[in-house]
Amino acid sequence: MLKHTYDNQHCSVARTLEVVGERWTLLIVRDLLTGLARFEQFRRSLGVTASVLSARLDGLVRAGVTERVPYQAGPTRYEYRLTPMGRELAVIVVALMQWGDRHLVDSGEPPLTCHHSVCGGAVDVTFVCRGCDTDIGIGEVGINYARQARR
Amino acid sequence: MLKHTYDNQHCSVARTLEVVGERWTLLIVRDLLTGLARFEQFRRSLGVTASVLSARLDGLVRAGVTERVPYQAGPTRYEYRLTPMGRELAVIVVALMQWGDRHLVDSGEPPLTCHHSVCGGAVDVTFVCRGCDTDIGIGEVGINYARQARR
Repeated sequence: MLKHTYDNQHCSVARTLEVVGERWTLLIVRDLLTGLARFEQFRRSLGVTASVLSARLDGLVRAGVTERVPYQAGPTRYEYRLTPMGRELAVIVVALMQWGDRHLVDSGEPPLTCHHSVCGGAVDVTFVCRGCDTDIGIGEVGINYARQARR
Repeated sequence: MLKHTYDNQHCSVARTLEVVGERWTLLIVRDLLTGLARFEQFRRSLGVTASVLSARLDGLVRAGVTERVPYQAGPTRYEYRLTPMGRELAVIVVALMQWGDRHLVDSGEPPLTCHHSVCGGAVDVTFVCRGCDTDIGIGEVGINYARQARR
């Protein structure tokens, strides 16, 4: 975690980046969302050193995003699972994925896809207005600081 | 930009993080979304050194996320604006903000808010199924690699 780095930033974007903004962290969350659970699986998927991976996983456990669950006794071995709070990061991961699919990928099918487990339909991350219950585009979204809370 | 850092990652999450994953970058995008435009405004808002800010802004211009627009002649001075592609990062920034509001903020009104410019209603970032046209929770979302595209 980027502890103290964004200390002068009193906003939830900065707070969240302190938990998931460090290099590799959101790719570990991506891997957890697609079903990976064990240290060696992450290491193969990410090609990252054991010490970096270990530090990131420990950080995610400390932040309450993942939990370590024993899956084998003698010696005890652990796997990692997203907590409910951690699973809610999916909206961030899928928003990153869909922006990349739209703007950065040349052609072909996007490698990671997102579907509705009930009807099988394609799933998007989008803005929804709770006032008039409509999907809206960024052109109709205002983002402001509440009262005098600037920074 | 984190050029080459995620080279072995063939997925749009990693591609997007190469553009916006470096420290401060998403906070600059947040500031642009709330109406800041000038170098000194970002510097005051972020408390970051001029050289880091300059490097991040140049990276965002190179990536096509922001553009430099002259606002004063003799000497020419520039301000920064999000391109249409850059404005679409709002969904990522608001998803980060809302996760932080839900899980990391102790109490009180969230400092940054998001509303519908047409009806004034509160705006959420959420999953929407394009098949059955419903808002869905993460419990009903499957995230998978297409065919054999693992990595």
